[in-house]
Amino acid sequence: MERLTWSKADKKCARVAFDAAYERECAGILAELRKRVDAIRDSDDIWGINDYLWRKRREIGDKYDFRGSVLADVLVRLMREGWITLDELQGLSEEKRDLLSRGLGFFKNVSGSPD
Amino acid sequence: MERLTWSKADKKCARVAFDAAYERECAGILAELRKRVDAIRDSDDIWGINDYLWRKRREIGDKYDFRGSVLADVLVRLMREGWITLDELQGLSEEKRDLLSRGLGFFKNVSGSPD
Repeated sequence: MERLTWSKADKKCARVAFDAAYERECAGILAELRKRVDAIRDSDDIWGINDYLWRKRREIGDKYDFRGSVLADVLVRLMREGWITLDELQGLSEEKRDLLSRGLGFFKNVSGSPD
Repeated sequence: MERLTWSKADKKCARVAFDAAYERECAGILAELRKRVDAIRDSDDIWGINDYLWRKRREIGDKYDFRGSVLADVLVRLMREGWITLDELQGLSEEKRDLLSRGLGFFKNVSGSPD
């Protein structure tokens, strides 16, 4: 993906969507955590929960990177994974929305192509 | 603490108490886990639970060591921490019960002595 400079307004809009994605993803993790805690049958299941949280924490830590140099890739990934929609990024400049839209289309085409 | 050899009967008795201590301690961790999950107020609290479980897992992993070379120390520690009582080790040889009893007494004296 092309290198971009992010204006203050772009960053503000991206931040809102980024934070919303984070909160939604964490809400999903919390729901799964509650389910796993309710399903504990023996002591060792406790450590399975620790493994689950550790894995999720690492994934989340790697994914939620707000640096301008990677932000477009991150936003496209969050859209691909369903945490945010392009509609939530209406406040971005048209150039950036086009770019993200093309990024999203690219992955749709890739995942839809035959092997 | 003196080096000991553990007979099959000693190990069998120690194993029952050791496993009971592990189950009791894990039940306490599970109760605390449930309390912490219920108290989650924001997303970052999830990672606090991960920190808690990670710390407990390390503590438990270090503590529950059934090797004969350290088993007497482990049993004394489990008694000191209240996870088992000397009564649960009635099946041990008298020599070992005396030793554990002295070990327990030693720590009681140490913790009760003035600085």
